[in-house]
Amino acid sequence: MRNLRVHTDRIRSDIEAMAAITDPGRPWTRRAFSPRFDEGRSWLETRFSEAGLDVSTDAAGNMIGRRTGSVKGLGTILIGSHSDTVPDGGRFDGIGGVIVALEVARMLKEQKIVLRHDLAVVDFLAEEVSVFGVSCIGSRGMTAALPKDWLDLTHDGRTLAQAIRDVGGAPDKPVDPGKVRAFLELHIEQGTVLENEGTDLGIVTAIAGIERIEVVLTGQPDHAGTTPMGTRADALVAAAALVCDIDAEAKRRAAGPDHFTATVGEFGIEPGAANVVPGRVRMLIDARSSQREAMEDFLAWIEERAQRMPERIRAETRLMSDNHPTPMDDGLITMLESAAETIGASHRRMVSGAGHDAAYMAKIAPAAMIFVPSKDGRSHCPEEWTEAGDIALGAELMAEAVIALDQERN
Amino acid sequence: MRNLRVHTDRIRSDIEAMAAITDPGRPWTRRAFSPRFDEGRSWLETRFSEAGLDVSTDAAGNMIGRRTGSVKGLGTILIGSHSDTVPDGGRFDGIGGVIVALEVARMLKEQKIVLRHDLAVVDFLAEEVSVFGVSCIGSRGMTAALPKDWLDLTHDGRTLAQAIRDVGGAPDKPVDPGKVRAFLELHIEQGTVLENEGTDLGIVTAIAGIERIEVVLTGQPDHAGTTPMGTRADALVAAAALVCDIDAEAKRRAAGPDHFTATVGEFGIEPGAANVVPGRVRMLIDARSSQREAMEDFLAWIEERAQRMPERIRAETRLMSDNHPTPMDDGLITMLESAAETIGASHRRMVSGAGHDAAYMAKIAPAAMIFVPSKDGRSHCPEEWTEAGDIALGAELMAEAVIALDQERN
Repeated sequence: MRNLRVHTDRIRSDIEAMAAITDPGRPWTRRAFSPRFDEGRSWLETRFSEAGLDVSTDAAGNMIGRRTGSVKGLGTILIGSHSDTVPDGGRFDGIGGVIVALEVARMLKEQKIVLRHDLAVVDFLAEEVSVFGVSCIGSRGMTAALPKDWLDLTHDGRTLAQAIRDVGGAPDKPVDPGKVRAFLELHIEQGTVLENEGTDLGIVTAIAGIERIEVVLTGQPDHAGTTPMGTRADALVAAAALVCDIDAEAKRRAAGPDHFTATVGEFGIEPGAANVVPGRVRMLIDARSSQREAMEDFLAWIEERAQRMPERIRAETRLMSDNHPTPMDDGLITMLESAAETIGASHRRMVSGAGHDAAYMAKIAPAAMIFVPSKDGRSHCPEEWTEAGDIALGAELMAEAVIALDQERN
Repeated sequence: MRNLRVHTDRIRSDIEAMAAITDPGRPWTRRAFSPRFDEGRSWLETRFSEAGLDVSTDAAGNMIGRRTGSVKGLGTILIGSHSDTVPDGGRFDGIGGVIVALEVARMLKEQKIVLRHDLAVVDFLAEEVSVFGVSCIGSRGMTAALPKDWLDLTHDGRTLAQAIRDVGGAPDKPVDPGKVRAFLELHIEQGTVLENEGTDLGIVTAIAGIERIEVVLTGQPDHAGTTPMGTRADALVAAAALVCDIDAEAKRRAAGPDHFTATVGEFGIEPGAANVVPGRVRMLIDARSSQREAMEDFLAWIEERAQRMPERIRAETRLMSDNHPTPMDDGLITMLESAAETIGASHRRMVSGAGHDAAYMAKIAPAAMIFVPSKDGRSHCPEEWTEAGDIALGAELMAEAVIALDQERN
């Protein structure tokens, strides 16, 4: 592998510095719209400025550091991620991608590399589910995908509109991101694929679509002691068989070439008393795929399976939400692969099972993502970990890609 | 069938009168230690007195109406049940047995039948799980089976000791039930066996033992989108397979000659978030049998099954409570069968899957129970229903049994 132009130590110490900005006694918590979040942004703003970036906040509440290119009208190469965390989250999810984008800008300045395109480093507002119950507020805002009525959502007496204003945004104004030549985001994988394979970097081909399917099973809440086994309509027993079948079906589908997962993450029974046969179960299925067809096919499978219930068990299914898969830009994928070869990093194509700001950015510009390995796949928890060296390699790939992209002749 | 000596209409109207004593807007709720409960007892006390019974409350808080027999020293024939209900319960569970015992005393008085034995009609205190979190307070108290430290249990600033005092008991004094020749209790079946068979009455051979087994499964709470299906340690999927196996095993055991049920009535998952693979499941198994050996054998089966978990799933089992089965008195069972033949009622032997005061009374005296059919097996809910005619037939059996028992020469 060639010598890196980006600085591993600087990336490590920046990530540590941002990690230190956490709610006291609750590592690592820097939720959007909190005083801690403002503190983090203030720290980042100084670093952006030191890197020669001109810092402002757009109408959607995203903090952006800009550097003008040598040729007018080519558009902006936008790089970055988000600095907010979930409660009790990790030190890398989001902020890793912001620090990497900052490091790319710093390196370009140090190496006196002048780009033809404008370059912008972005910290998207509130990528994680925020106190307002919704996510990707900044990237939705930048891409005109923020539902208007969300601005009226209220938390602790403050509307989302006011909260966006409080970080320097202008929710009533239209957002104009200008011409974006490409959006590139580095993120931790939040899975174990790279680690298990020993592959340096992932190049994301698509962000999986997510459908959430609610299934409610209704049986009969009888006395647990007096109702013979043969005459019960036990909703939990029926639900347990369904969970087993969903898992087996998901494993069958995941064995194919495309990314597929299905998870029952919410599961509750009623009445939930020791001496009463469960009469009702509600479960929420989270199914993800890179292929729209696979999602539709799985939904049909669930609906068909829900009809095959034991006697006296009634099943109702409801599609609660349905986000389509987002393919990343083919040209950028190829370019990233070529850049990975140039820097000598092992790489693989992969699907992102998690949602990202890049899924929104893909609506207005060619977009792509770089994944770096997550230790044990842990994420959204204090144990979340990625080696600084792995992040630096991802930063080097991003720098290489930015330069290659900048030099492309259309 | 011969003409009944007990009065069906009187039983019906008494049950209706007690049902009317319910928390307003919350049929049917008359929980022990509530003002409504006191109101119910006050109503019953008047009826007991009208039936020629001498009413008092024993040290354990049970209300007892006594009639002295013609021969001293033969002991008391004790009949009755409980007048308290669960929240949102039914109109028959417990109170049906109290009204039947009252009706037997009334009928004996009307028919001028003088018994050799003393007769006592009892309303046991707090058979249902009370606000203090424990059940069968009166029958435990009468049989010296009430744990001393329960008296310190506190609800709304009042100790159980004080609550027993408030109903007229004396929790610090020993309870002396005197010599009890036999205890007989009529109760609704709370199951569907009699109804499905079209049998008039059940004669209980044993009250099932109950073991409560907690199982905790621990896996790994990974990201639902990024963790490939093959690398998960999903506690819910493992728990679902266990629930299916418990149900199949219980059905296998229930197919044998002895009463057996196993129910998972409590079941909770963590973290319970749509996008997180469940990392932990806690379930509580309620297993009941008339045979102690079957209970021990099932516990061993669970413990063995809990060892067979998918990779990276850890299972812990804990026996939370363990009540042995209580056989009813053979002599009383035979006598009840013979009495059922005399009155011309169809009958069958059966096991009570639910616990009853009779299980405690069996510690100090021969005890037996009569079951009457429950519509659709529903119980502990407003829909609980038994026809007055069915209850009257049970009352006739109890009267016949009391008279037969009284005439037995030892």
